[in-house]
Amino acid sequence: MAGFFVDATSVNRLVTETAVGATEAGDEVTRFAAEVKPGWDIGGNANGGYLMAIAGRAMAEAVGRPPVTLTAHYLRPAPAGPCDIEVTTVRSGRRFATATATLTMASGQVLQLLGTFGDQTPGGPSLTREAPVDLPAYDDCEVPPPPTDGPVPEMFRRLAVRIRPGDEGFRTGNLSGRAEIRGWFAFADGEPIDAIGLLLVADAFPPPIFNTDLPAAWVPTVELPCTCVACPSRVRCVAGSAHGSCTTACSTRKERSGTRPASSSPRADNSRCIPAHPPER
Amino acid sequence: MAGFFVDATSVNRLVTETAVGATEAGDEVTRFAAEVKPGWDIGGNANGGYLMAIAGRAMAEAVGRPPVTLTAHYLRPAPAGPCDIEVTTVRSGRRFATATATLTMASGQVLQLLGTFGDQTPGGPSLTREAPVDLPAYDDCEVPPPPTDGPVPEMFRRLAVRIRPGDEGFRTGNLSGRAEIRGWFAFADGEPIDAIGLLLVADAFPPPIFNTDLPAAWVPTVELPCTCVACPSRVRCVAGSAHGSCTTACSTRKERSGTRPASSSPRADNSRCIPAHPPER
Repeated sequence: MAGFFVDATSVNRLVTETAVGATEAGDEVTRFAAEVKPGWDIGGNANGGYLMAIAGRAMAEAVGRPPVTLTAHYLRPAPAGPCDIEVTTVRSGRRFATATATLTMASGQVLQLLGTFGDQTPGGPSLTREAPVDLPAYDDCEVPPPPTDGPVPEMFRRLAVRIRPGDEGFRTGNLSGRAEIRGWFAFADGEPIDAIGLLLVADAFPPPIFNTDLPAAWVPTVELPCTCVACPSRVRCVAGSAHGSCTTACSTRKERSGTRPASSSPRADNSRCIPAHPPER
Repeated sequence: MAGFFVDATSVNRLVTETAVGATEAGDEVTRFAAEVKPGWDIGGNANGGYLMAIAGRAMAEAVGRPPVTLTAHYLRPAPAGPCDIEVTTVRSGRRFATATATLTMASGQVLQLLGTFGDQTPGGPSLTREAPVDLPAYDDCEVPPPPTDGPVPEMFRRLAVRIRPGDEGFRTGNLSGRAEIRGWFAFADGEPIDAIGLLLVADAFPPPIFNTDLPAAWVPTVELPCTCVACPSRVRCVAGSAHGSCTTACSTRKERSGTRPASSSPRADNSRCIPAHPPER
């Protein structure tokens, strides 16, 4: 049976057609229908990683390979409702396929994406430059305190995120002073995390800039780039690290105030994964 | 008078038209003609940062703002010759404009790009999380040793790159063992570096993976993402740091061997710049 997240990001392939003016074999357009489901939002607008997962799933299906590196730019808020995804395969090679995509709703275009897809066959030369994310065990991390104002977003109940002790201070008024939030990501129902799930992990931690004394209130995502160096297979927890530097894999920008970008960086390469650890339900 | 780099990346705007099926005001296509000039190549194929600078200049002209974050995916090698760039503005807002672009040559599509552009007006809240790149002064860094086989690429003579002592070891057989190359970037003729020049800086250092004992010979760029947190104004040197982690701003992937990505990261936010220091000619 498909898990809750898999169901909430399912896409329905409608048609594949050769683009007008196509000059190469790979230049084709595939259209999908999908739905931005309620309950994956913060304050009525769908989470950026969730939206990227819907579009990323369509792109992966169109090119027949999982994502290696995918970048989404966010154009407008996305309330729940039907959407369509148009994937253009610009090149389909032996090892990699490159595609662009748009995700459009009734209000207009919501996402513009660009990614390269490919199977990451193990066995080639490899280099691990940094140690895995330094993080206490899942059970020793904190359940994020609920927001002090407003209801708990339904999305929070679907995830079993745990935050490194101290990093949850932005919710309790004890700012760590570091633009960094580390912790574990898991689905509350124990659903395994695959390559598409990693796209949600990329945007599942609170904006790390909240842990500084900058006057950041609203942090809309301008760009969310994700690099999947490894493709997890049925892992239940992934360690995440979100910190405030523009040069990491995922950046969010505070559009209103001109704040320097805060970033979150899901490190599939050196993250700690727990294959057998069932998260709290 | 335009500098050498400005001339080598100049673009000629041909026409702006509203896209077929456009549903919003910003959805328009602007076409440019340009030329991939000889002398900006390594072994006959143009440098990836140079190509990105041509396309980035077209995109910046189309939307009327400098780049904030720009990602290029590389589809095929680019020998010198005429090219055309098609820029689609997908959204033009108050602070940011988002655009996609293709760069096409006689052989087919070479680049697919996605970026967000905007003026980075100073004065908003800002956060500097990391110290500037730790690097000896320009004059105390090394002139990169010439390649041991084959002629010195003409591009190397147009740049006045200096490498941190020890990081040039991959050329002399003394590998540092660290997938990292730091140094200074400057144009040999002293031409100032602007936001478009930063796109060249992003790909101007040798692949840092060369400093490890991995069997890396050919390192084609799959994706080159650049985040410009600050827009330099008439600086002559920029400190660069290239290192081997997939989560930094710029990554190259070794397509042939499955090597983990090596990355280079031009850090406009915390880089050291030298406004008045003329590089060696």
